[in-house]
Amino acid sequence: MDGANPEQVMQGTLEELSRRMAASADPRLAQVVHSLIDHAHQLVCTLRPTQDELRTALEFLTEVGHASDARRQEWVLLADVIGLSQLVEDINAPRPEGATPNALPGPFYRPAAPELPNGANLSRDGLGAPLAVTGRVTDISGAAILGALVEVWHANGEGLYENQEPDLQPEWNLRGRLRTDAAGRFHFATIRPKGLALPDDGPVGRLMTALGLRLERPAHLQFRISAPGFQTLTTNVFDRDDPAIGHDALFGVKPALLAQFRTVSSDGAPQGFALDVAFALARTGQSGRAHPTP
Amino acid sequence: MDGANPEQVMQGTLEELSRRMAASADPRLAQVVHSLIDHAHQLVCTLRPTQDELRTALEFLTEVGHASDARRQEWVLLADVIGLSQLVEDINAPRPEGATPNALPGPFYRPAAPELPNGANLSRDGLGAPLAVTGRVTDISGAAILGALVEVWHANGEGLYENQEPDLQPEWNLRGRLRTDAAGRFHFATIRPKGLALPDDGPVGRLMTALGLRLERPAHLQFRISAPGFQTLTTNVFDRDDPAIGHDALFGVKPALLAQFRTVSSDGAPQGFALDVAFALARTGQSGRAHPTP
Repeated sequence: MDGANPEQVMQGTLEELSRRMAASADPRLAQVVHSLIDHAHQLVCTLRPTQDELRTALEFLTEVGHASDARRQEWVLLADVIGLSQLVEDINAPRPEGATPNALPGPFYRPAAPELPNGANLSRDGLGAPLAVTGRVTDISGAAILGALVEVWHANGEGLYENQEPDLQPEWNLRGRLRTDAAGRFHFATIRPKGLALPDDGPVGRLMTALGLRLERPAHLQFRISAPGFQTLTTNVFDRDDPAIGHDALFGVKPALLAQFRTVSSDGAPQGFALDVAFALARTGQSGRAHPTP
Repeated sequence: MDGANPEQVMQGTLEELSRRMAASADPRLAQVVHSLIDHAHQLVCTLRPTQDELRTALEFLTEVGHASDARRQEWVLLADVIGLSQLVEDINAPRPEGATPNALPGPFYRPAAPELPNGANLSRDGLGAPLAVTGRVTDISGAAILGALVEVWHANGEGLYENQEPDLQPEWNLRGRLRTDAAGRFHFATIRPKGLALPDDGPVGRLMTALGLRLERPAHLQFRISAPGFQTLTTNVFDRDDPAIGHDALFGVKPALLAQFRTVSSDGAPQGFALDVAFALARTGQSGRAHPTP
């Protein structure tokens, strides 16, 4: 191997690793590690890092671990901001044509929020610009789904969820569970959410800043909709007028998930906002479009 | 993007990232991150991990960081055991035909070891099987290099370096600096080293064990040879009879670095071992073989 070029070294090492891992008791793990190593080696042959650059990269990866604890998962943040989490979501939640696409549930979902009647107000502190939401849940042919469970949660007018600041917001603020009526409809009152900023004080935030990338997410409401016989849908409805709509840090914005917050006036004076949403659920077993013909 | 396949999502996200990073003040960083993301996305499209698998992978990467501190660098260990460190070394230290190839210096090198006369004994505790080493340093045409600085360091008969167990081995045990004579020769006495086991009690060790991979390195002596006008050579001389010679955990064994430890007898009784080594240095500026014709 004396004098071999890096591509030869790479190939030799990979073949050697395959040989050594052939007896692994966990073939999926062996496959994953083999692919990872293959790509890591290709990367090194392409980028030709210096020893200093390799050291810097390993220090960064170490720091991402050190910044993670029970309350903060910096590695998940890294996977999020490079679009990896969204890609895995798209692979695992394919939907048939006409169904509402899935979005990442994110870290702020809480199960078992209070069940509320239609028309209830989700705001428990009265802070923020009033927002009236009306929605409809159907199958992909447009037929209403009666009794679907609609879970909703969103950030407040400062871009913060109640479980991010448990001492400042009332518990269950801007969260609730509703049921659709016979026409598949639901409606509730809340306040208009603001966009979020992802934490920028850790190694991932510093990397993004060095790259000139912003850590903003456009304002959105989050929904989880389930009904017997249908695939559970976890999705977002994004404010199409949010200034960050074109550069969501998590690559979660899709045309089908955009919505317009309309201004509501009474006697010419602005009274708040209104939003209409619609969700089309795929039936259980209805095949997804993981690999549609383009 | 509703209904788009993962490959389309991947391509879209990459293009979007390129667009967003175009104004980065650090084009090399942007290039590195772009390539990293490209490969990470390809990997996900190939492996199609479940959300649980992604979570497990991110937990593993977090743990690798948590296992790293001032005394232990688990990320370096990970880069080492997947052959990445060796590959970066091969890229950065290309040598012309006929020159001794470089090896990783490893974490146990200490500069400024005591200067010793030829013939000195490196063993400061007298423990282990005696080994007599003779060596020669030349240029690649075979011409002797006078006054080359030969730094040598190696593990003891238990596979441990003196700075791994400062309370058990005398300082500078099995380390020294010598100079070549007019014939390019040097010689010293020491003890025969044993192979090493890399730490297996961290996340990387557990991964390797799950894959059926061993964490052994065959016995070796480490050398750093420098002379004015020549490229400094950091290399290893491996014991070709070591049982781990065929599966070095760090992929550092190259044919040109193999050596035979000969048994020395006196009146039929074994007295220890002898080893002859030879190093050919490339001149400063002598072009390497990073991309030779195969």
